[in-house]
Amino acid sequence: MTTRAVFFVSDQTGVTAETMGHSLLTQFEGLDIRAATLPFVSSIDKAEEALRKIHAAGEESGLRPIIFGTLVQDEVREVFKRSDVLFLDFFDAFVGPMERELGTRSTHSAGRAHGMADSAAYATRIDATNYALANDDGSNRDYGRADVVLVGVSRSGKTPTCLYLAMQYGVFAANYPLTDEDIESNRLPQALQAHRQKLYGLRIAPGRLQQIRQERRPGSRYASTAQVQFETRAAESLFQRHGIASLDTTECSIEEISARILEATGIERRVRP
Amino acid sequence: MTTRAVFFVSDQTGVTAETMGHSLLTQFEGLDIRAATLPFVSSIDKAEEALRKIHAAGEESGLRPIIFGTLVQDEVREVFKRSDVLFLDFFDAFVGPMERELGTRSTHSAGRAHGMADSAAYATRIDATNYALANDDGSNRDYGRADVVLVGVSRSGKTPTCLYLAMQYGVFAANYPLTDEDIESNRLPQALQAHRQKLYGLRIAPGRLQQIRQERRPGSRYASTAQVQFETRAAESLFQRHGIASLDTTECSIEEISARILEATGIERRVRP
Repeated sequence: MTTRAVFFVSDQTGVTAETMGHSLLTQFEGLDIRAATLPFVSSIDKAEEALRKIHAAGEESGLRPIIFGTLVQDEVREVFKRSDVLFLDFFDAFVGPMERELGTRSTHSAGRAHGMADSAAYATRIDATNYALANDDGSNRDYGRADVVLVGVSRSGKTPTCLYLAMQYGVFAANYPLTDEDIESNRLPQALQAHRQKLYGLRIAPGRLQQIRQERRPGSRYASTAQVQFETRAAESLFQRHGIASLDTTECSIEEISARILEATGIERRVRP
Repeated sequence: MTTRAVFFVSDQTGVTAETMGHSLLTQFEGLDIRAATLPFVSSIDKAEEALRKIHAAGEESGLRPIIFGTLVQDEVREVFKRSDVLFLDFFDAFVGPMERELGTRSTHSAGRAHGMADSAAYATRIDATNYALANDDGSNRDYGRADVVLVGVSRSGKTPTCLYLAMQYGVFAANYPLTDEDIESNRLPQALQAHRQKLYGLRIAPGRLQQIRQERRPGSRYASTAQVQFETRAAESLFQRHGIASLDTTECSIEEISARILEATGIERRVRP
């Protein structure tokens, strides 16, 4: 099979182009691609330099390269539009319909998204990230400031979910790992009692949890079938007994867990991407 | 001014639709919007329910709602395409040209991006996040496994950048904060000497650093003009003396710092979004 050259080209970081392109590419099965990101393509010169790299890759593969673009400036987009690559740029596709709908011209200027233009939102995300780090894993317990406190057994996905909620949405998320003592008593841990309405449980299937723990501490009691089954059952019973809403994370990515928590709890995003 | 209702509609988390929509909306100045995300719209029923919410918001504002969509399934997209909203869906815009170029039909199936289909990539991101947490702030110092070790003074952006590099790109990033002792000696810290080729410096303007530190510890020596100027100058001199590539983070978001580090160092993304 021949490899197709794919490029994500942006006048900024390229993250949106990568995300967009990746979502589309996963819709085509058995596609053999070689992908590269060309960020900060913010002038005609840089666009022409990028196009040289793209052409070289195209010649090497013998197939027409595919470019996913997020290029704000018309004159930079033109460089790719005039070329013979397949150029899929989402400003190109959507700015026109938006201008017609809104009855105004767009600014066509680079450096807005992912910049620091909205510095209040940016500060919120950093604050939320610091909050998640300080209130991770039962440390600190400054739950008065939390939007949500995730509860679950060790390795149910609490820490990465808190970090993602902070960085993506500016949401203040703490997490509390259920200790052996919490689990054996079936009581709501003391530290959580005043914050019951903020609690959200993460569940996980014992088989999957055991797999994760085995990778971390092979052959340990922590990763044993008995321990994993005991903990997952006890956590579920604790959630039920105390009316704590919860989510089965077994088949979910961190992005999905985070979005489902916001959807289920109605917690407002403090910032948008 | 009248508020325009904007919705980000997705059969998955909605993050791509939010990012796409936000990038486009920032191109229009003075726009007054009210935005909401409707994730997991993965069936005709859910699409019709979403459309009812959208219509209600449109009637309230008196303006046609704008929908940014990432809906894979044709029949779900049809619900919005048949309606009277402005529907900007990026599968709708780009799947056709990609099918023609690739000469194959797309699968049109939901649940691929942000799912756990590519579980190796997913595990890499989680591993990288755990690595960043364990090797944050000079702790642990398992730099043999690092792709990059960020060096800088306190509050120059090291920790959030390491977390972002891990979660977004699966890159293993540690960070080392320059201590007073490191700064006074102008020597490369012992712990870093064996990993010089992995070091990358974060610089920051003294005024901005002082502002950040003032918010954290108002009136402290840590936030004083003298201390901040001393540290920023000493860090810059250390980077120069030891030939450590560095970036001025003063005007950069975490996304931009991360993308610029990858661009400057040539470190490969271990995963794509």
